[in-house]
Amino acid sequence: MTTIRDVARLAGVSVATVSRVLNDSASASKQARERVLSAVFQLGYRPNANAQALANQSSDTIGVVVMDVSDPFFGALVKAVDDVAQRHRKNVLISNSYHQADKERHAIEVLIRQRCSALVVHAKMLSDEELIAFMQSEPGMVLVNRIVPGYEHRCVGLDNVAGALMATRMLLKQGHRNIGYIGSNHDIEDQHQRRQGYLLAMNEAGIKPQQSWQVRADPYLHGGEQAMVELLGRNQQLSAVFVYNDSMAVGALATLKENVITVPAHFSVIGFDDLPMSRYTSPHLTTVRYPVCMMAVAATELALKGTAGQLDQSQTHLYMPTLVRRHSVAPRQTVTAIAASSQDEI
Amino acid sequence: MTTIRDVARLAGVSVATVSRVLNDSASASKQARERVLSAVFQLGYRPNANAQALANQSSDTIGVVVMDVSDPFFGALVKAVDDVAQRHRKNVLISNSYHQADKERHAIEVLIRQRCSALVVHAKMLSDEELIAFMQSEPGMVLVNRIVPGYEHRCVGLDNVAGALMATRMLLKQGHRNIGYIGSNHDIEDQHQRRQGYLLAMNEAGIKPQQSWQVRADPYLHGGEQAMVELLGRNQQLSAVFVYNDSMAVGALATLKENVITVPAHFSVIGFDDLPMSRYTSPHLTTVRYPVCMMAVAATELALKGTAGQLDQSQTHLYMPTLVRRHSVAPRQTVTAIAASSQDEI
Repeated sequence: MTTIRDVARLAGVSVATVSRVLNDSASASKQARERVLSAVFQLGYRPNANAQALANQSSDTIGVVVMDVSDPFFGALVKAVDDVAQRHRKNVLISNSYHQADKERHAIEVLIRQRCSALVVHAKMLSDEELIAFMQSEPGMVLVNRIVPGYEHRCVGLDNVAGALMATRMLLKQGHRNIGYIGSNHDIEDQHQRRQGYLLAMNEAGIKPQQSWQVRADPYLHGGEQAMVELLGRNQQLSAVFVYNDSMAVGALATLKENVITVPAHFSVIGFDDLPMSRYTSPHLTTVRYPVCMMAVAATELALKGTAGQLDQSQTHLYMPTLVRRHSVAPRQTVTAIAASSQDEI
Repeated sequence: MTTIRDVARLAGVSVATVSRVLNDSASASKQARERVLSAVFQLGYRPNANAQALANQSSDTIGVVVMDVSDPFFGALVKAVDDVAQRHRKNVLISNSYHQADKERHAIEVLIRQRCSALVVHAKMLSDEELIAFMQSEPGMVLVNRIVPGYEHRCVGLDNVAGALMATRMLLKQGHRNIGYIGSNHDIEDQHQRRQGYLLAMNEAGIKPQQSWQVRADPYLHGGEQAMVELLGRNQQLSAVFVYNDSMAVGALATLKENVITVPAHFSVIGFDDLPMSRYTSPHLTTVRYPVCMMAVAATELALKGTAGQLDQSQTHLYMPTLVRRHSVAPRQTVTAIAASSQDEI
């Protein structure tokens, strides 16, 4: 492998001069610069990013920590970070954390050790204290989908409670009373906040949802499928369900279809996230839009500002979800036996 | 920030000794090792991965180049690499290349400059020669979804022609004659090979597919939706379509549904890949399984073997696709007007 020493020898300069040229230091003469770049070209020398990072004490890499890049929600997040990175001619280093505290910690540490100057971190299991310690040592670290008190200017969050409230209220407005909740079995605040919004809306309407109307499962297609099987099996005379995310909602739709329960005529379903696939289900999924791309772009730009010491401490970044009305929600049918019996119970 | 010098000072040893201990060199004494590790712990010192990589001339990071991590096919690929990496206690660095030659080259170079010792590369636009040059300088670089002659032992590929042949033959066996092909507008060999398999099967059956039976679009949900609109608009009396990938097939199903064309009773659809979502469409999508996880695992293990100089030059890694029979393919209906008119044409 060609080394920096070979380049120095061919250019007739010192290794330090080669290093200065390659790191764009102003102290290298124009003549030295030309000789070095010519030698680099002749030898096909590839500068070592680790050596450059050491010299600059920062790298041209933006680090991203997400739960799992193969989950479409996080895929969209990473892609939005990558778009910003490309505009700034930076590279992206991605690490998965699988909603496990030790893996979240490890993922952040790996990226810091790679001297990523900017970090966009989705971490749900680490404590506020631990994240604050990381942010204190890393001025370019920003949290996405989480608000840590005192660090609001470096956190990009979503009002999950408001999103769940609007979803459940929409079902209530359509006359549904026995409304189920399919939640995630990941023990993260998103799950707690979305369930809280559901309970608040039900409470507003004077309905006390039974425990058996609620079920939790893996937040993926298969989890939603299983959860809907579970809810149907409990025979709770539900006529609608609010689902933690779109992946689960698509799985729930498959179960309903298999059981010849027509959506939305006999059962209404509303999801959360507005993934691309939600426009391709049958019927098209009504959902709550999580502006993940907009938020990931904002977080990346904040992280880059952080590395440059240009953060505005007075700014906060709490986003609001919005309703996306498609075709999986309809008024409760009062003529069917199912709906009639559900009304008797109330 | 705590530096290696602070650690050396507290431990009462030289910086070189600290470095030897942190890089697991055998030449550090047991006593020095204990003092250094104690100082590291007391100061909360975080070793710099770039410095370690420089010292070892390799990093503990596996690099992955994919087209786009937010595409579910590549998400699955990256996740499989990550699973192997975790077993080997390695980190994963991911770079997107968007099927553009300059971005593929840049992505590979970035990972090499980060001193990734193992590289799993999905590159479709670079020439064989350029990839060979990279592989010659990087013993841990392996290609996935591409076979470069002379480097078969470092390439993990799929027989795309065989997959397209079996898909099209399945449609022919069900009595379909006017079979369309929805392809990708990415100009990559997968597209050419899958179209070739389609043409071969049609040729076997004595059918010459018209150019107007074939359409290309973005290889995503929306592309499949648009392509199906295009095919229907051309009014070619098709009764079935073989689709480049499952994302496009799901988009095509949505168009058919919107036009009240029942799948599979009046129109058959077969995809390629077997993405998780294909089990959740309505009807469930019949498709050709691309064993992407198995292949990504194999490629990662080969790359790690390559870094250790343990590759078996006599081994090749060409995988075969398999048919997944679900519910989007049925015999051609000869009683309907559409089918009758398509028969008249032949």
